[in-house]
Amino acid sequence: MNTPNDTRNDARTPVTVLGLGAMGRALAAAFLRAGHPTTVWNRTPGRAGELVAQGATAAGTAAEAVAAAPLVIVCVLDYDAAHAILEPIGARLSGRVLVNLTSDTPERARAAATWAAGHGIDYLDGSIMVPTPVIGKPEAMVLYSGAREAFETYETTLKALGGRAPFLGEDHGTAAVYDLSLLGFFFSAMAGLVHGFALAEAEGVAAKDFAPFTGTIAGILPPIAAGMAEDLERGAYSGDQDNIVMEATGIAHVLEAARHRGLNTEVLDAVKALADRTIAAGHGNAGFISVIEEMRRSSTSA
Amino acid sequence: MNTPNDTRNDARTPVTVLGLGAMGRALAAAFLRAGHPTTVWNRTPGRAGELVAQGATAAGTAAEAVAAAPLVIVCVLDYDAAHAILEPIGARLSGRVLVNLTSDTPERARAAATWAAGHGIDYLDGSIMVPTPVIGKPEAMVLYSGAREAFETYETTLKALGGRAPFLGEDHGTAAVYDLSLLGFFFSAMAGLVHGFALAEAEGVAAKDFAPFTGTIAGILPPIAAGMAEDLERGAYSGDQDNIVMEATGIAHVLEAARHRGLNTEVLDAVKALADRTIAAGHGNAGFISVIEEMRRSSTSA
Ligand SMILES: NC(=O)c1ccc[n+]([C@@H]2O[C@H](COP(=O)([O-])OP(=O)(O)OC[C@H]3O[C@@H](n4cnc5c(N)ncnc54)[C@H](OP(=O)(O)O)[C@@H]3O)[C@@H](O)[C@H]2O)c1
Ligand SMILES: NC(=O)c1ccc[n+]([C@@H]2O[C@H](COP(=O)([O-])OP(=O)(O)OC[C@H]3O[C@@H](n4cnc5c(N)ncnc54)[C@H](OP(=O)(O)O)[C@@H]3O)[C@@H](O)[C@H]2O)c1
Repeated sequence: MNTPNDTRNDARTPVTVLGLGAMGRALAAAFLRAGHPTTVWNRTPGRAGELVAQGATAAGTAAEAVAAAPLVIVCVLDYDAAHAILEPIGARLSGRVLVNLTSDTPERARAAATWAAGHGIDYLDGSIMVPTPVIGKPEAMVLYSGAREAFETYETTLKALGGRAPFLGEDHGTAAVYDLSLLGFFFSAMAGLVHGFALAEAEGVAAKDFAPFTGTIAGILPPIAAGMAEDLERGAYSGDQDNIVMEATGIAHVLEAARHRGLNTEVLDAVKALADRTIAAGHGNAGFISVIEEMRRSSTSA
Repeated sequence: MNTPNDTRNDARTPVTVLGLGAMGRALAAAFLRAGHPTTVWNRTPGRAGELVAQGATAAGTAAEAVAAAPLVIVCVLDYDAAHAILEPIGARLSGRVLVNLTSDTPERARAAATWAAGHGIDYLDGSIMVPTPVIGKPEAMVLYSGAREAFETYETTLKALGGRAPFLGEDHGTAAVYDLSLLGFFFSAMAGLVHGFALAEAEGVAAKDFAPFTGTIAGILPPIAAGMAEDLERGAYSGDQDNIVMEATGIAHVLEAARHRGLNTEVLDAVKALADRTIAAGHGNAGFISVIEEMRRSSTSA
């Protein structure tokens, strides 16, 4: 669709970024580094200083900011915050492409898509899967779903934010489905990291000595996830290389050591309870993925 | 210490492996691949078949197995199981090097060291940080602590199990401290992975489509851990790039979506509770590492 004079998908494409929290600032800085004329706005003034020094234009209002570019990015705390910004300027957004990189539920992403359609806005929902220091790098991943044509038109521009920009389909909720599924993994792992630091510290191991070892554990997780996926696709839980009785024994050792040192064990208590119920249900010879049977039951009915 | 005729640290070193569960078999197979004369034994007979086909000698009793080699590895479910095997043959182990690769608490590792010292056994405690398919590879990591001379004597032999074999010091409990600290991270992350598969599945995303995305999350964890370590060493929780209010909002979205789909949320409920208490304690502008303040308080007194 691009013609030689079309500036929609090259470094001349003007972009607007609404929301200058940590992530909004990182996004705007990446667009600036890629050469895009970048207009920025934030509810609370005074957040644009460094970006202006890097060449950004600070708009006085969200409406002004939106008027400056055919491609508008919004990245704020949640969809309530995004709605508070976008609702009053719905008419101004008409005919533009809106990319909402705010994280929230699939339901809210779909509701936002309905709202956008009502205003003639081409709407893409996106989810950022990396922290701010990675934004703009080839390995940075941002997931997209929704308006396919809008994505294809601006794909190169959007890749200024991250080299990995998979389009997951036209259901606006799909990026959020992947986002929240991955965030559940991320925050469970983050709690586990902090628990690791706390237990190491309680035995006098310095954080800087412990941290490098976490890389080995992080490195084994993707092949384990691939194995879990194979089990799920096959509908059978192989446990010949790692059975959940052995794994529950390991978790029990962690809990014993942590309690002995007066640490909080609530997260791992919950993991142990899932494993124990899985074993009690007869899956003792299966691998850890068999706890999915318990994950599929709501907590209240458990 | 090695003399030209000393076979203690080359491929001629005979080794004995006690315990032929999934991990014991992987260890014995790695020794065999590296060329070591390998004797194996397991409480329940009939587990040595494949190993014998690969060249192992199956011993009829643990005592016979131990007599066959100066270096004895034990890898069973836990230290109770290890003790059940080793206690009756303590005298036979005298003068040999015993490497216990069973996972358990630092307290039990130290108690085992006391027992070993009483029998004149050179005792090394070790912890295996990778799953069975990785055993024997350069990237496989096994941690060691305890008898330094025994480690140095057999370092090359032990590296047949994994190319990364850090010796963490002479306290026999140190390998277990690292082990359990890393296992807390591992099993929290594992529960998060399964939760991710369950949430994706509830929205019709196939496990094989979801699994590859977990690699991006796993990849950001080690640099995040390094940042956490810096904060802990500095004694200050930087939150300018990722504050815990934003993070708790993200966890709340995961919980909302998971509950809406009837999934179990106990693990993430516990993570959210830690984050909420951290925010209530005044750390809202800090990063996620600030939950360590709550981790340091025992669950019962929370
Ligand atoms: N930071 C990361 O590492 C990271 C990584 C991946 C994804 N994300 C996602 O990126 C999004 C933004 O995160 P962040 O780290 O930038 O958060 P943040 O630093 O806490 O910034 C929050 C932003 O939301 C705005 N906001 C909040 N409530 C508002 C309202 N009612 N009306 C208008 N604006 C409002 C804030 O404006 P004020 O300045 O006026 O308060 C600010 O611009 C979130 O959805 C998050 O999940 C962040
Ligand atoms: N598998 C992994 O991925 C992995 C990874 C890292 C670390 N590890 C660690 O490696 C160790 C072994 O794990 P695994 O996967 O091999 O477990 P496993 O497959 O369940 O095997 C358990 C072993 O322990 C023996 N055992 C249990 N109770 C016993 C007792 N009272 N007396 C004598 N032997 C007893 C079993 O003998 P029987 O056959 O007679 O029951 C069997 O040899 C554990 O400490 C685990 O944490 C495993």
